[in-house]
Order: sequence, then structure tokens, then C-alpha cells
Amino acid sequence: MSHANAALPEVETLALADLTELLQRIFEQHGTSSEVAQVLAHNCASAQRDGAHSHGVFRIPGYLSSLASGWVDGRAVPVVEDVASGFVRVDAANGFAQPALAAARGLLVEKARSAGIAVLAIRNSHHFAALWPDVEPFAEEGLVALSVVNSMTCVVPHGAQRPLFGTNPIAFAAPRAGGEPIVFDLATSAIAHGDVQIAARQGQMLPEGMGVDSLGQPTRDPKAILNGGALLPFGGHKGSALSMMVELLSAALTGGNFSFEFDWSNHPGAQTPWTGQLLIVIDPSKTAGNHFASRSEALVQQMRGVGLQRMPGDRRYQERAKSLAEGITLPAAELARLRELASAR
Amino acid sequence: MSHANAALPEVETLALADLTELLQRIFEQHGTSSEVAQVLAHNCASAQRDGAHSHGVFRIPGYLSSLASGWVDGRAVPVVEDVASGFVRVDAANGFAQPALAAARGLLVEKARSAGIAVLAIRNSHHFAALWPDVEPFAEEGLVALSVVNSMTCVVPHGAQRPLFGTNPIAFAAPRAGGEPIVFDLATSAIAHGDVQIAARQGQMLPEGMGVDSLGQPTRDPKAILNGGALLPFGGHKGSALSMMVELLSAALTGGNFSFEFDWSNHPGAQTPWTGQLLIVIDPSKTAGNHFASRSEALVQQMRGVGLQRMPGDRRYQERAKSLAEGITLPAAELARLRELASAR
Repeated sequence: MSHANAALPEVETLALADLTELLQRIFEQHGTSSEVAQVLAHNCASAQRDGAHSHGVFRIPGYLSSLASGWVDGRAVPVVEDVASGFVRVDAANGFAQPALAAARGLLVEKARSAGIAVLAIRNSHHFAALWPDVEPFAEEGLVALSVVNSMTCVVPHGAQRPLFGTNPIAFAAPRAGGEPIVFDLATSAIAHGDVQIAARQGQMLPEGMGVDSLGQPTRDPKAILNGGALLPFGGHKGSALSMMVELLSAALTGGNFSFEFDWSNHPGAQTPWTGQLLIVIDPSKTAGNHFASRSEALVQQMRGVGLQRMPGDRRYQERAKSLAEGITLPAAELARLRELASAR
Repeated sequence: MSHANAALPEVETLALADLTELLQRIFEQHGTSSEVAQVLAHNCASAQRDGAHSHGVFRIPGYLSSLASGWVDGRAVPVVEDVASGFVRVDAANGFAQPALAAARGLLVEKARSAGIAVLAIRNSHHFAALWPDVEPFAEEGLVALSVVNSMTCVVPHGAQRPLFGTNPIAFAAPRAGGEPIVFDLATSAIAHGDVQIAARQGQMLPEGMGVDSLGQPTRDPKAILNGGALLPFGGHKGSALSMMVELLSAALTGGNFSFEFDWSNHPGAQTPWTGQLLIVIDPSKTAGNHFASRSEALVQQMRGVGLQRMPGDRRYQERAKSLAEGITLPAAELARLRELASAR
């Protein structure tokens, strides 16, 4: 169905399954295997469904540009290595991180349930998506999950002069009784890179303290940050220390690249960082008393009791419920472009 | 030896071993077993050695006051439970967390080396010290360690009106080739509670954004924060999310108390939070390529290369080297008080 309005751009609404299928066809038409297309389409459509626009269909041009450049292998077959009773490694074979996670996921969960905790070290991988979709499903299975991924040099370490770290997000998910899992996904930069891109596209200024220009001077202009400038870590030296930890866990502990190590200059159009990702999954049924989900619910109730209006993740769940009930609304022009991309090249 | 100076208070210098022995005698004289006294004295003297004054001998009155109140059991014998190939639990039996860690440490390291990762869940424990001493020794053995501990209600969740979380620190340690381990220990509050106490004692104002008074209004006065006020999380909603994660990992995942759950009103003088602690230890020799320590060194070199003057932990290592070479200097009056505490009650 289609709605026209004098003041607003024409929009169109479609079901999640239809958007997913459309995105899957786009990926397949642009050099990915059917397996990879399925994983990426599900991920990207889920972000759009949840109102996480900087990781929704907004990302499609970046994916396709990277695939076209030959920088990332859309047909990579991840190689899973069973290293120890709590340690799984995956060589993503220069493909995307999400199919590597999907390939190792069963073994990871099995180990976490048996050993009580397990780690998945993904290397040689490209992560171009939000991080919460990687952890939330574990919480839906009753597990606690933590993940970190490094990206590409764009953040100045606190106390340094030039950028080195990536935006290096940390995502966490935990089950809770009687409600959606507790999930957060936070960039250790003061702002996510995608949000800077969106602000630049919309011509909006950023709040203070987000970034510096190419001369290292504070700026609120997203274009100055994107054109040779850099981001700052959130929370001063503390956020900077956490960003450093993300580099160590995602790269040094996986065998992947640090955010500053890869060189894509021979691949014009490449946008996907070629790094690593770490996931830690814990089975809370091993906890003394085995009441994790009711305990986490008790914490949520107390947080509401001291006046917290919105839990981390609440906005996503609200947008999700709306999308599942009413469909996902996109500008008609954007949807037309997507349909064009999905048809023969 | 003793130095007098017209402008400065008289000070005295003593060796680390002598300070440790003195503190051990103090603990033993105030109701701890010899095993517990040894662990706490080593911990507290190490903080003093490293210039971490808010967790050094400054803490002794709080320890003794808590012991005298009957709130914490200085003779507790921790009960170690071997739950799974990567999961160890300890019931600290209402004693201190550090002896519980010491009791489980061998098993934890064994499991981490075998499974690749292991978790230690300490509950029913009192943690009244810095967190870096808990993780640094793992890095000295070539392991990567992460620890979190919750404390007592004094931090207002971002977006809430009243305090709920503790200062809830996160500590991380990783080995590196050719240098001291990379170690950080950061409160998820904007400032550590001990630093507020020190500022109050010294009559100094705090920077903006650290806390609120008893009416929930921003204040720079440490006494207003301590007298019915509260701290704020570092880094806004992101630090707040991490503080929530620390509650979940330290309490819900261990079977310990949340920061808001214990009631010490029947134990006047009690100061040690009765909560839980989680440690995750990873064996980086399981990493593809097995080059973790040289990779972390490469990161440090790059951080220096972009202009970072001081790595997290550097100040501690400098103070440590100075203390080991020249001894630990304390005000003579403070040392006299400590010696008095160490003699018969």
C-alpha cells in the first residue's frame, strides 16, 4: 500500500518477511552466497524493524560498495575450530562476521551449557552491523552474552593527539523473567559512526564533545569529523580504556586485525572494517540458587522504582512491536531503489 | 628513619614487607584469622605501595569498624564449589572477597588453561579494596582477566531520580611482551567513593558532574554527596548501562546481593558492602597464532605513536618502582596510630 501526503514524502509499508526477502535478493545479486545473503538480510531487516536506522537499509550501499570493490568475500565459507572445552575459533575467511557467528553458534552454545562459560573468537572478519543482534538471541535462550568488535581507526585515545581506535562497541544481553531480555549495545566512541553519517546527510550539528576536525580541534560539524577529523571516546579516560580493551579482546585475542592495521587503499569503495570479534557466553543455570532470570527482573523493577522511565533496549522493543503489528515503513523512493538493486544487475 | 621539616608533617619511610607485616598484625588483633589477615594486608600494602591512597592504609579504620560491628566475618572459611569445566563458585561465608578468590584461584587458573576460559562467581562476600590487585596477577601469568564487583547504593542510574547502583568497578588485565601488564580498574561512577571521602577530609571541591546532594541537585561539595547525596555514573547512559551490567554479573550471576539489597542498620560501624564478585579468565595461548603478548605490545606502541603519554596503570607502576627502591613513606602520626592498632587491644 502507498500513502501520499502534501507535506511528507511518499512512504510505503511492508512486512518484515518481505523486507528480509528483498534484502536477501539484493545481497545475492551483488556477489554473496545464498547462506551469507540470508544472514545479512535477516540482520539488516531486524535493525530496520527495531528503528535502528543507522544499521538498517541505510547500510545497503556500503555493503554493496564493499562487495563490488573485492575487499570482502561475500561467498566466504567460515572455518570453525574446536580448540578447547570452552574455546571456539572461527576463521571468517575474509567474509562477514555474522555468517561466521552463525556457523559456530551451535558449538558455542553447547560448550557454554556444558562448561558454564565459553568464548568465540572470530578473526579475518568484516562487521558492518549493529552488535545487539549478535547477543540478544543468546538471552532469548536463557544465556548471558557479552560481545565486542573493533572497527577502523576513527577515535582519538584519551590523552593522545591522533586517532587510533575504532568505535569499538560493547554489547551485553541477559535474560529476565516476565519480560524481554535486558540488552544494550554501546559504542565506546562518544557517538556511533553511523549517527555521524546520518547527521552529515541531514545537515545537522552534533552535541559538544563528540569529535575533532582534521586539525584535532573540537567541532560540532559531522562533515568536519568525517573529512579528516575523528571521534572522541565516551566518558574520557574510562571510555578510552574500554575501547583499548575492545581492541585487545577483538583483535589480539582472536588473531584478527587491530582497527589501525588493515589497508583498503587498493579497494576503492571498501567500507567494511576487516578485524575480529569476541563473544563470551555464560550459562546462568550454573549460578548458586539458579534464579538468574528472576533476579534480573528484580533489578529492573528496582530501576523503575528509582524513577527510570526507559530501560536500555526499550525503544527497540517498542519499535519492533509496532513494526510487527503495522509493518515497516520506508520512503517509497528508497524502496524503489532497493527493488531496483534486487533485480538483475 | 624519620624526617622533620618546618613546612611539612613529619614522615617515616618503611619497606613494603614491614608495612605488610604491620597491617597483618593489625588485622589479626581485630578479629581476623591469620590467613585472612595475610591476604588483606598484602592487598592493602600493595595499594599503598602503588600510590593508590584511597585503597591503602586509609581503608584500615573502615575494615576495623566493620569487623568490630560483627557485620563481616574475619574468620570466615570460603567454600569452593567446582561446578563445571569452566565454572567455579565460592561461598565467601560472609567473609572478605579476597580470601575467597585466593582459595579458588588455583582451580580457576587450571580450568582457564584447560577450557580456554573460566569464570569464578564469588558470593556472600565483602569487597572493600581496589579491584586491580585481583586481576593483575593473572596477566603476570600470561592470562587475560576481567573482573567486576558491585558495592552499595550510591549511584543514580542515568535517567532516574534516586540512587540504586554501587560504584561498581570494572577491572581488566592483559599480558604484554617486554613490559608490565596492561591493567585498568575503573569505577562506573563518575568518581570513586574513596576519592569523595578523601576530598571531603581535605576540604576540596570536586569537578562538575560527579554527584548530587540529598535533594538530587548537582553539587561539587563532597560532604553534600556523602551526607544523603549520591554519585552519578560516568559517561551518561553508557556508564549507567555498564553499571547495570556489573550488578547483573556480580550479584544475579553469583547468587550475591545487589548493591541495594543488604541492610546493615543493625551493625553500626559496618562499612564493607556485602555483595558478590565475578572474574573471567581467558587463556590467550588458545588464540590463533598464539601471539597475544606481542600483539598487545604492538597496540601499546601504536598508542604511544599517536601521542599517548601515559598508559592506564603507568602511574601505579612508577609509584611501585619508587616504593620498592626507596620504601613507602607515611606521615609519622599515621604510622604511630597503625602501630598502636597492631599492639594488644
